[in-house]
Amino acid sequence: MLDMRKPNRIRRLDIPSEGLVLQPEQLYLGRTKERTETHNLVPMIEGRSSVGRLGLFVHVTAGFGDVGFCGYWTLEMFAVQPVRIYPDVEICQIFYHDLRGDFTEYASDKYQHNTDIQPSLLFKELADDKDNDPQLELPFGMERPEA
Amino acid sequence: MLDMRKPNRIRRLDIPSEGLVLQPEQLYLGRTKERTETHNLVPMIEGRSSVGRLGLFVHVTAGFGDVGFCGYWTLEMFAVQPVRIYPDVEICQIFYHDLRGDFTEYASDKYQHNTDIQPSLLFKELADDKDNDPQLELPFGMERPEA
Amino acid sequence: MLDMRKPNRIRRLDIPSEGLVLQPEQLYLGRTKERTETHNLVPMIEGRSSVGRLGLFVHVTAGFGDVGFCGYWTLEMFAVQPVRIYPDVEICQIFYHDLRGDFTEYASDKYQHNTDIQPSLLFKELADDKDNDPQLELPFGMERPEA
Repeated sequence: MLDMRKPNRIRRLDIPSEGLVLQPEQLYLGRTKERTETHNLVPMIEGRSSVGRLGLFVHVTAGFGDVGFCGYWTLEMFAVQPVRIYPDVEICQIFYHDLRGDFTEYASDKYQHNTDIQPSLLFKELADDKDNDPQLELPFGMERPEA
Repeated sequence: MLDMRKPNRIRRLDIPSEGLVLQPEQLYLGRTKERTETHNLVPMIEGRSSVGRLGLFVHVTAGFGDVGFCGYWTLEMFAVQPVRIYPDVEICQIFYHDLRGDFTEYASDKYQHNTDIQPSLLFKELADDKDNDPQLELPFGMERPEA
Repeated sequence: MLDMRKPNRIRRLDIPSEGLVLQPEQLYLGRTKERTETHNLVPMIEGRSSVGRLGLFVHVTAGFGDVGFCGYWTLEMFAVQPVRIYPDVEICQIFYHDLRGDFTEYASDKYQHNTDIQPSLLFKELADDKDNDPQLELPFGMERPEA
């Protein structure tokens, strides 16, 4: 079970050339190969219709990037039915909205300048004792027993 | 089973301080604590990436508010995997689009000036006899046996 | 199982007047009765909140139409819980974004000028031998045994 207050168990998967079958009722986090840097627009990500027609979501009502976001995009993937995917397939697109008025660029260290897939760091916000939580040290890619 | 033509069975849940586990294959309607009032822009709601990375949708392809909408936002929540949520967590954000040309403000009494979570009122549009449907009297929060 | 590299098995369903129950863990492709033609804006599709409150997605992170797209919209429908739907119900809406700068209109023959529901044609892009793939001849509406 996932928990908003905890770093959740993760396991790293590679997509082999013969494909990987994504199963329903399972969240998969992915990462774009492309890195983007945006300073005066709001970047948003959306899937391609050819991918949506296979029942594969590429984000979970979280299409926004922040103004000022620099890094790789973590994709939240969910398959309605089992679907076989392959490496190097173009599955999403980024578009940009103009801004009106003043704005402050994203300056949080939460997801900025990332180089890897990033699971939710919501637990950092919700921690009772933010300065002394050993769970904050969890490096992504290290598997943990379920809490 | 849900039905477009009927007021559907609902049950009210509270989120206790120790959290509530949302289950997959179950739709949960929620309500923002914040009330908004918008008169010359199109408000839209979207989840936070920290919440999407836990597999929790906050709307079901229905991010739009109407121009002129005044009230609390009903969230349509769906969890890809079981996830424990807590009260008072910031889970979504509202953004605004400019409009071009003339527009008419939302004037329907369907969801306007609401103060509570609102289940779908689509059955009101689809009723064969709109003036004489005893089901229209269902107050939200009252549980009914499944039709 | 669906597969990005293959034309996938499809079966045609009609919505009878007494309704059709959509089941979870099943992707349903639909088609709008309305045809649109857009030349200098970006069309996007979104569901109605009255439909989202029944747990029915109308697209799968693929709300975009292309600039220059002419045709009927294929809907990607997914139900969180079983839901009975009926013919002739208004379930979605199209909105338009302005464009900045130069643009090229959609000119692919993949989904342009369609007249029917269109399953994913991603396999055309991914075919090893694009000129000699007998699967390309699959007409929509013809059922095939699962590959």
